[in-house]
Amino acid sequence: MSRTLVVFGATGDLTRRKLVPALFNLQRKGRLPDDVRIVGFSRSPLSDDEFRGRMAEALVEFAGAPASDTERDRFLGRLHYVAGSVTDDRGMETLAERLDELEGEQCADRLYYLAIAPRFYAPTVARLGAMDMVCDDHGERRVVVEKPFGTDLASARTLNEAIHEVFEERSVYRIDHYLGKETAQNILFTRFANTVFEPLWNRNYIDHVQITVAESVDVDHRAEFYDGTGVVRDMFQNHLLQLLTLVAMEPPSSFDADAVRNEKHKTLAAVRPITSGRLGLDTVRGQYAGYRTNEGVPDDSETATFAALKLEIDNWRWQGVPFYLRSGKALPEKVSEILVQFRCPPHNMFPLPPGATLSSNYLAICIQPDEGMHLRFEAKVPDTVADLQPVDMEFHYRDNFPGVELPEAYERLLLDALHGDPSLFARSDTIERAWSLMDPVVEGWQTDAAPPLEVYEPGDWGPDGAHALMRRDGRRWKRGCRHC
Amino acid sequence: MSRTLVVFGATGDLTRRKLVPALFNLQRKGRLPDDVRIVGFSRSPLSDDEFRGRMAEALVEFAGAPASDTERDRFLGRLHYVAGSVTDDRGMETLAERLDELEGEQCADRLYYLAIAPRFYAPTVARLGAMDMVCDDHGERRVVVEKPFGTDLASARTLNEAIHEVFEERSVYRIDHYLGKETAQNILFTRFANTVFEPLWNRNYIDHVQITVAESVDVDHRAEFYDGTGVVRDMFQNHLLQLLTLVAMEPPSSFDADAVRNEKHKTLAAVRPITSGRLGLDTVRGQYAGYRTNEGVPDDSETATFAALKLEIDNWRWQGVPFYLRSGKALPEKVSEILVQFRCPPHNMFPLPPGATLSSNYLAICIQPDEGMHLRFEAKVPDTVADLQPVDMEFHYRDNFPGVELPEAYERLLLDALHGDPSLFARSDTIERAWSLMDPVVEGWQTDAAPPLEVYEPGDWGPDGAHALMRRDGRRWKRGCRHC
Repeated sequence: MSRTLVVFGATGDLTRRKLVPALFNLQRKGRLPDDVRIVGFSRSPLSDDEFRGRMAEALVEFAGAPASDTERDRFLGRLHYVAGSVTDDRGMETLAERLDELEGEQCADRLYYLAIAPRFYAPTVARLGAMDMVCDDHGERRVVVEKPFGTDLASARTLNEAIHEVFEERSVYRIDHYLGKETAQNILFTRFANTVFEPLWNRNYIDHVQITVAESVDVDHRAEFYDGTGVVRDMFQNHLLQLLTLVAMEPPSSFDADAVRNEKHKTLAAVRPITSGRLGLDTVRGQYAGYRTNEGVPDDSETATFAALKLEIDNWRWQGVPFYLRSGKALPEKVSEILVQFRCPPHNMFPLPPGATLSSNYLAICIQPDEGMHLRFEAKVPDTVADLQPVDMEFHYRDNFPGVELPEAYERLLLDALHGDPSLFARSDTIERAWSLMDPVVEGWQTDAAPPLEVYEPGDWGPDGAHALMRRDGRRWKRGCRHC
Repeated sequence: MSRTLVVFGATGDLTRRKLVPALFNLQRKGRLPDDVRIVGFSRSPLSDDEFRGRMAEALVEFAGAPASDTERDRFLGRLHYVAGSVTDDRGMETLAERLDELEGEQCADRLYYLAIAPRFYAPTVARLGAMDMVCDDHGERRVVVEKPFGTDLASARTLNEAIHEVFEERSVYRIDHYLGKETAQNILFTRFANTVFEPLWNRNYIDHVQITVAESVDVDHRAEFYDGTGVVRDMFQNHLLQLLTLVAMEPPSSFDADAVRNEKHKTLAAVRPITSGRLGLDTVRGQYAGYRTNEGVPDDSETATFAALKLEIDNWRWQGVPFYLRSGKALPEKVSEILVQFRCPPHNMFPLPPGATLSSNYLAICIQPDEGMHLRFEAKVPDTVADLQPVDMEFHYRDNFPGVELPEAYERLLLDALHGDPSLFARSDTIERAWSLMDPVVEGWQTDAAPPLEVYEPGDWGPDGAHALMRRDGRRWKRGCRHC
């Protein structure tokens, strides 16, 4: 039994920047089984050797530390290339023949990786089905679908239906690379491998949760694509809702893919959809000044480059604990963090100065750039009678695992897909639920119920409305990992 | 209204090493009111200037950073000296006259500080009473009593009775300098100014508590005194039980001295005395090899230089949560810490390697040498599928308050006593309760019910029995602040 990874879109950016470097690093760490071959498929007419040459360049550019020639050649030897188009029977036939030839008489598992434009997902899958390339008789057949998965509930449903015509759900691996990040994964380990967090992790002790995924770059050369998408589809439907899910989900009984994904789905299912009447209160949309001057962006574009949402989760654990989410482009820094804000202590026994109050604790989970956690708590200021000052108890990956580089999310995700572990991939029901939560926002913003589109200066933390959203609730956005 | 601090034992070590440097540092920080004068009393026939000269030397040796001549002279100008003995009426009369002369016609608060041998506490207090030096008509009269306060319950009671003949309880300040340490004080701030600790702080989540107060020095020149005392009287009755109290007490409703001290007393009152039948199980006594060769120590001395105790607290919060206390001399390092060991997570959902278990969380409160806290928890090892490893979230005073030197406990205690705040001083009922808990150990060790006196090598963590005590309960001693 050998394994074949078929990469559709083999000459594209994703393959060059992420997939091939990740595969190479897996080999370097001794994790990529020797029997894994990689077959690139794309329209450019390249020979195997030409493809290998390109990928060799990609390794130099994107694979981190330099490797020995032996290591590199062993990797390049795994690579093969077939020229053709997914929309063309001839190309697919050539691919099928080449795969049979490479795999020989033996059974081989196959992983089809769709690193292509989303409009080709369904046609490619259909063709794989039509050409009988998905029959499990000679080994498992799995498909990895890159994001974005749909652009709304209807399109995601249509895509799921098209895929399910050919693949069973258990064979479908939908990428959300946020789930492959170490610090995202560690949220569940932190919560459920420890005694000290979970007892606090509910409405009795938590006041609210903030999730920030900020980018400092603007849309730049992606402007034309971005203008048709906007921040809610681009970031909230996948990354931010996934992070919310990891923070909010109930403990599964096991770490099996389905046990975990069932709990994730339950959590999203309990998120209260934002109704039209609440759009003006619970959503904020912003666009950075200058966005409309990008090539490909209409002068009157209403596309949001920033959004802030207030979500509620209607279950026993989270009733009355709002989750505030914000994400955008052209913000002051590139940072992803989750801030769990605890309630105030129920009683102050200390002789505080007039007007002073105890500040409340928070736990900041720093996803990037400096992975770790900060627990903010009050300590007595030394050499005073009873002055209090907030201080941080800190954990940093870099200190506790010196020399260990946090791997690219794709390493873990590719290996899981090769081994058939879908834990960190999105399930069809959950993706659809995520769209059904975001559709009312995206669509509502095109109605009269929409909040005003607020312009913000690049380098600001979004428009005034984002702060007003918090102020109305007597709260404010915080950056808990600032001192990392 | 001025203030007079009368130091009995003014030429002794405590005055020179601790009290005068602390008072000077208080002045330097602008905290010692200008109207405070300091009157030394001791047998050596010294003039004011000779006394000032000696104290000037003490400042150079023990007061930390060098000070300006002006600052020093201003301090020395507060000093006065009266020669005499507390057992001699003539000397006390001279003192009384000198005080009246210094204070003049005005009212003046007086703080009598007994920095003298314990056998003189009662006679001195009696003489203060007899000579009418404790009448509050012309200002408050308070007395600070150094440790040790008694050597057992009977002697502590006798001493309390003698003191109460002359002073009301509210005017008696019994020193336990451990309570003046920043990190000891911070235990209450940590527990009660924050939301995240107190919900975990009970039998539902805590498995047990360890309190370690270790000294690396041996008894050395204190051998003769020490041999009549032993580690239980020297360390447990005061320091270790005080630390236990700070960890275990219920939240008071206010930070007033009596509210706090009532809760402390309630906690000690709930500690279950160790019965004769439990001595062999719950107590360990050790003596370091070579102790008996010290001058002044009998060849057959059974004095314990190390002890470990297991205590239970019979109240709602702590039922079934043992407190393990250990202290001794000639141990590997000088360290004081409290380790709050949490229970194991109730359920393990992670695919651990065969034989592996989740390790349990603990919170280590580091009292010295490196003041701070460590929260030990499980994190996912980066770049693995699901390997877990214990890591530390850390808080250090030195990082969070850079440049702030933690003051000597005596600074705070002297200032509180001058200002009339007894919060950090031991109350008579609590001291007596502490003795009534330790007497059965000290006395029981002189009966057939005693555990064997185990010899340990200097530099070991006490005798085998200390480890056996934990092993029997399936536990082990830990050092949580090791990486400070």
